Amino acid sequence: MDQTTHSFAAIILAAGKGTRMKSDMHKVLHKVAGRAMLEHLMASVAELGPERLAVVVGAGREQIEAAVGDRAQTCLQEPQLGTGHAVQQAESALAGFSGDVLVLYGDVPFVRAATMREMLERLHGEDSPAAVVLGFEPEDPLAYGRVIADDDGRILKMVEYKDADESERACHLCNSGLLAARAADLFALLARVGNDNAQGEYYLPDIVNIAIADGKPCAVIVADSADEVAGINSRAELAEAEARWQSARRLRAMDEGATLIAPETVFFAWDTQLGRDVTIEPNVFFGPGVTVADNVLVRANSHIEGAKLASGVKVGPFARLRPGTVMEEDSFVGNFVEVKNAVLHEGAKASHLTYLGDATIGAGANIGAGTITCNYDGYFKYKTVIGERAFIGSNSALVAPVTIGADAIVAAGSTVSRDVAPGELRMVRAEQLVKPGWADRFHDAMKKKKEAAKKA
Amino acid sequence: MDQTTHSFAAIILAAGKGTRMKSDMHKVLHKVAGRAMLEHLMASVAELGPERLAVVVGAGREQIEAAVGDRAQTCLQEPQLGTGHAVQQAESALAGFSGDVLVLYGDVPFVRAATMREMLERLHGEDSPAAVVLGFEPEDPLAYGRVIADDDGRILKMVEYKDADESERACHLCNSGLLAARAADLFALLARVGNDNAQGEYYLPDIVNIAIADGKPCAVIVADSADEVAGINSRAELAEAEARWQSARRLRAMDEGATLIAPETVFFAWDTQLGRDVTIEPNVFFGPGVTVADNVLVRANSHIEGAKLASGVKVGPFARLRPGTVMEEDSFVGNFVEVKNAVLHEGAKASHLTYLGDATIGAGANIGAGTITCNYDGYFKYKTVIGERAFIGSNSALVAPVTIGADAIVAAGSTVSRDVAPGELRMVRAEQLVKPGWADRFHDAMKKKKEAAKKA
Amino acid sequence: MDQTTHSFAAIILAAGKGTRMKSDMHKVLHKVAGRAMLEHLMASVAELGPERLAVVVGAGREQIEAAVGDRAQTCLQEPQLGTGHAVQQAESALAGFSGDVLVLYGDVPFVRAATMREMLERLHGEDSPAAVVLGFEPEDPLAYGRVIADDDGRILKMVEYKDADESERACHLCNSGLLAARAADLFALLARVGNDNAQGEYYLPDIVNIAIADGKPCAVIVADSADEVAGINSRAELAEAEARWQSARRLRAMDEGATLIAPETVFFAWDTQLGRDVTIEPNVFFGPGVTVADNVLVRANSHIEGAKLASGVKVGPFARLRPGTVMEEDSFVGNFVEVKNAVLHEGAKASHLTYLGDATIGAGANIGAGTITCNYDGYFKYKTVIGERAFIGSNSALVAPVTIGADAIVAAGSTVSRDVAPGELRMVRAEQLVKPGWADRFHDAMKKKKEAAKKA
Repeated sequence: MDQTTHSFAAIILAAGKGTRMKSDMHKVLHKVAGRAMLEHLMASVAELGPERLAVVVGAGREQIEAAVGDRAQTCLQEPQLGTGHAVQQAESALAGFSGDVLVLYGDVPFVRAATMREMLERLHGEDSPAAVVLGFEPEDPLAYGRVIADDDGRILKMVEYKDADESERACHLCNSGLLAARAADLFALLARVGNDNAQGEYYLPDIVNIAIADGKPCAVIVADSADEVAGINSRAELAEAEARWQSARRLRAMDEGATLIAPETVFFAWDTQLGRDVTIEPNVFFGPGVTVADNVLVRANSHIEGAKLASGVKVGPFARLRPGTVMEEDSFVGNFVEVKNAVLHEGAKASHLTYLGDATIGAGANIGAGTITCNYDGYFKYKTVIGERAFIGSNSALVAPVTIGADAIVAAGSTVSRDVAPGELRMVRAEQLVKPGWADRFHDAMKKKKEAAKKA
Repeated sequence: MDQTTHSFAAIILAAGKGTRMKSDMHKVLHKVAGRAMLEHLMASVAELGPERLAVVVGAGREQIEAAVGDRAQTCLQEPQLGTGHAVQQAESALAGFSGDVLVLYGDVPFVRAATMREMLERLHGEDSPAAVVLGFEPEDPLAYGRVIADDDGRILKMVEYKDADESERACHLCNSGLLAARAADLFALLARVGNDNAQGEYYLPDIVNIAIADGKPCAVIVADSADEVAGINSRAELAEAEARWQSARRLRAMDEGATLIAPETVFFAWDTQLGRDVTIEPNVFFGPGVTVADNVLVRANSHIEGAKLASGVKVGPFARLRPGTVMEEDSFVGNFVEVKNAVLHEGAKASHLTYLGDATIGAGANIGAGTITCNYDGYFKYKTVIGERAFIGSNSALVAPVTIGADAIVAAGSTVSRDVAPGELRMVRAEQLVKPGWADRFHDAMKKKKEAAKKA
Repeated sequence: MDQTTHSFAAIILAAGKGTRMKSDMHKVLHKVAGRAMLEHLMASVAELGPERLAVVVGAGREQIEAAVGDRAQTCLQEPQLGTGHAVQQAESALAGFSGDVLVLYGDVPFVRAATMREMLERLHGEDSPAAVVLGFEPEDPLAYGRVIADDDGRILKMVEYKDADESERACHLCNSGLLAARAADLFALLARVGNDNAQGEYYLPDIVNIAIADGKPCAVIVADSADEVAGINSRAELAEAEARWQSARRLRAMDEGATLIAPETVFFAWDTQLGRDVTIEPNVFFGPGVTVADNVLVRANSHIEGAKLASGVKVGPFARLRPGTVMEEDSFVGNFVEVKNAVLHEGAKASHLTYLGDATIGAGANIGAGTITCNYDGYFKYKTVIGERAFIGSNSALVAPVTIGADAIVAAGSTVSRDVAPGELRMVRAEQLVKPGWADRFHDAMKKKKEAAKKA
């Protein structure tokens, strides 16, 4: 999305840690689609190129500060005396800034950049409103504050539900809390907001009524759907937001040419990229950082994070791809196989019960069932390099650092701790000790023992 | 829940095996949330401390008798001549008992203890009703029998749907079948019930009409929801009951501070216990007997039964914890790992492709990929003991009974059949046999053979 | 279903490849329940025993031709000038055929054989209609063409939505496009259809209006549900069709006596066969070719294709059965086990972390954890035969071709490349190399190295 034409700053309110979450982690750091709420919101703001970004913090401030780093200025609100008071705490962070200000909420993370842009543009409409409020029309308006406005979106009055009369309650346009105003207007109006109410708090929407009383117009625009401004205050609301996000993402995947046999069982991350003619069987989970090219088949019950899958790749069922996995064209990872920080070059195959960690698998190589790359000695990690067309026999352990040459064969059951040259056979296998009749005698003895144990 | 103030006995009707289930197993033994219907019901009754418990059995009686053991007296109903007749079969089991009687149904297993208590307390209301009926108000009253009552819950008439006139059918208060009455009243009234109806059966609700005709008041109380008294007569109804149960349990889990990324894909057992700040990825199945402490992460596609997970534990994806698993603080079980009857002490790790059965893993020990505890010789099970900080190299087999000392190292690919002392290295590995060029010659030969096979 | 009494031919229109699918694969070859749409439709037609079958193809014709083989005659439509034009392309394929013709659509694959039969029978009703149209009544009739008919199903007019007046649009009986007519009537009428419309196309429904204008009666019958005639034109519609199909199949499974703990998480294939008292835990995927006998337990997260499970079998969780798996009575395949082209005879067990490929496992044999059949040398596949009651120790590799005799024991960790005789013990294990104190010295050295690495 293009940046806005007028310069703007965003203030994100995130002082409330969120008691209803029942969590030691700050509410806005809980994740949807593998990404913290706050990050979703900051990413949408970033699309519009804000000149400054302030995050108002309170309880759990260290967690927020650690999360935003130097991407935003954090402003402490302590004690917490309402949304108006919260915005005031950002005044010093915006010192010297004279553009527009957008007030957002860390726990309302899915407001679209297009909506934010619309709010900011409305601020520069012909009537030059003092404030632009984002309203929404829920199916059930419950006890939300109402925005009483005319048909042109000019606000007549902002009213709390408890103060609203019957006709005002019958109005279903509700206040999302999001608001845009010029910096100068915003802080001047806020300075005049009182706290003469039951909670003794300073409410941000009050600036609208003050501006109106001053004869300045204020405007409301309406969110496309109530979901866009849904607040997330509990784990159940978090799950609902996740469900909405996933549902939209699945539709997009199908729209772009992926077959999801059971869309409701496929979970994407915020940054999953999918090609065309991709087929995904049920119960597949994508963590962050996955790119899937065209013509890829992901079979059921696979779990994929931080992986890059090229065209023609087949994965699963029961595959587990961890960060750093790169699968080149037509390579295959089958059931009960874990891959981490490893490249499978073109056509390489690891079909069953294998662990490939810190490894490079050459094109056309075949990794037998039960192969383990022993990449860790308890202290350091080491690399395994397997050459093109090499054949690793089943149940082999490759003790890294180790290199298996091109076309080499490792015999089944070998523990290989020294490099294998190209075209070489490496076999590590003891003599076959044969004891004829031993098993028969063992069975007889054990049966007797079992009988005796039963009697005792 | 506190016990009731008046002594009471419960009669559970379970004579009908349930043809629509199409099962060799008695209907009431089918499970919801990993527990038989009958057990759910008996547990709710037990909360109220009944003086006696009788279960009326018929077809499949041996199964019921085996299930209840000496926790209830079973009474045979044969032939089965209706619900009134069924209750009569329990008369001898209640000989000498003069308190209240609660009539329940094995296939209506989710009536809450609070509801039962309310029924029993109503029996001791000012008007001292002869019987208290549990009514319910379904969305669609279908052909349920109706309870015609005044606004105070005093019953005017019980009427079967087929006998009901239009105004009676318009009444949506239905009869659940559950009923409370004093023992003396119950059996005296039942003795007067006739079977002059199409089925030639003795109906329990008839006692209400008889009492009313005698001028004795009868009362109805209404279940909070129709779901509470839903009968389970088919596999589809069983699945619906399971879905309702799971849905409520998931909400409770979230309410108590667990994150369920996709609640609808997580399945709890009746006794699952969850801490706070527990995160559960999609597609996790909890069998009975699981306790999860705070700050535990259960990754996708894990299957957990009879396991105790301490704080900071991480599990999965694709972990399978079987009964007897104890994971102490910060221990980890990763993908394609099965644990059975084993303790992982603090910080112990088994990250991949491992079977730990009948084992103790010392604090900080690291179990390499592909490790197998060989706990079974075909006749008996044996124990593996791994010391603190021990390092088991990948693809090792530990042949129990065996003890690996603290800080010991087992080299990758070793089959260890004798104890390893603390701090010792144990390596069981044959010589590396090197055949330069052998693989190249093999490839040439096999390619020719393959060509020949194609031509043939 | 019995064949029809009158001989008939079917024409399946499949010239449109389906742009909205965004796929290189022709629309009608996309799968529902593991079977191409076109195959679903052809199977329903086949139930009625058609005399001829023509498939009209266009874009992607090679794919369709490869799919149908000699089961149908393909007729090329190029260019594509509407449905009427499409049917005309099949005229030569039906040369000499004088019976009834049923016009179907490859992307409307779930029309039931019973409905087709009803259409064909209606053609021979007393009024001998010139054409029989299949109508449907959707909840929202959108912009579908309407069928204006009297109460007896005699059509007054077929009208496109854009040409319909208000009263016609108020009629909710819509045209599915499916049609039956005698061959002679069909082609004679089609020859009179014009293309004087916005698209310049020849529309099949026009023949109905022409016939009516000729004074010949035409009839409409109504599909039981709108779902039956739902067209599948996008991946989202494909997913919806899959969901409907699965939903119906799950209900049937439960109806026939299977317990599905969470029906919505179980995925059947078109040909899955299930016995009675089968229990299926959540997240089980059935690919094509599976037969499950009575009293089978399929635990969570299992993936089963081309397998035959006899009575008493237990599978999973996390089992992966591939084509050619045969599990005889009471055999067991546990977690992280893959079976392919292998027979487990009565009571055989493979409980964990195993790959059984191209193998026969004798009755009562016990396959230890981590066992791998090494069935592939990079060029050919070989067979493993395991005798009755044999015991394969954990972490063993069986290098095929190899035979393990009855009652034989393979010691844990053995790589067996030569046959094992009945009753024999085979142990392939190197000497246990013991280095007292080595691990302690290693730990000291590595800790120092790690410290040094941290400082650097």
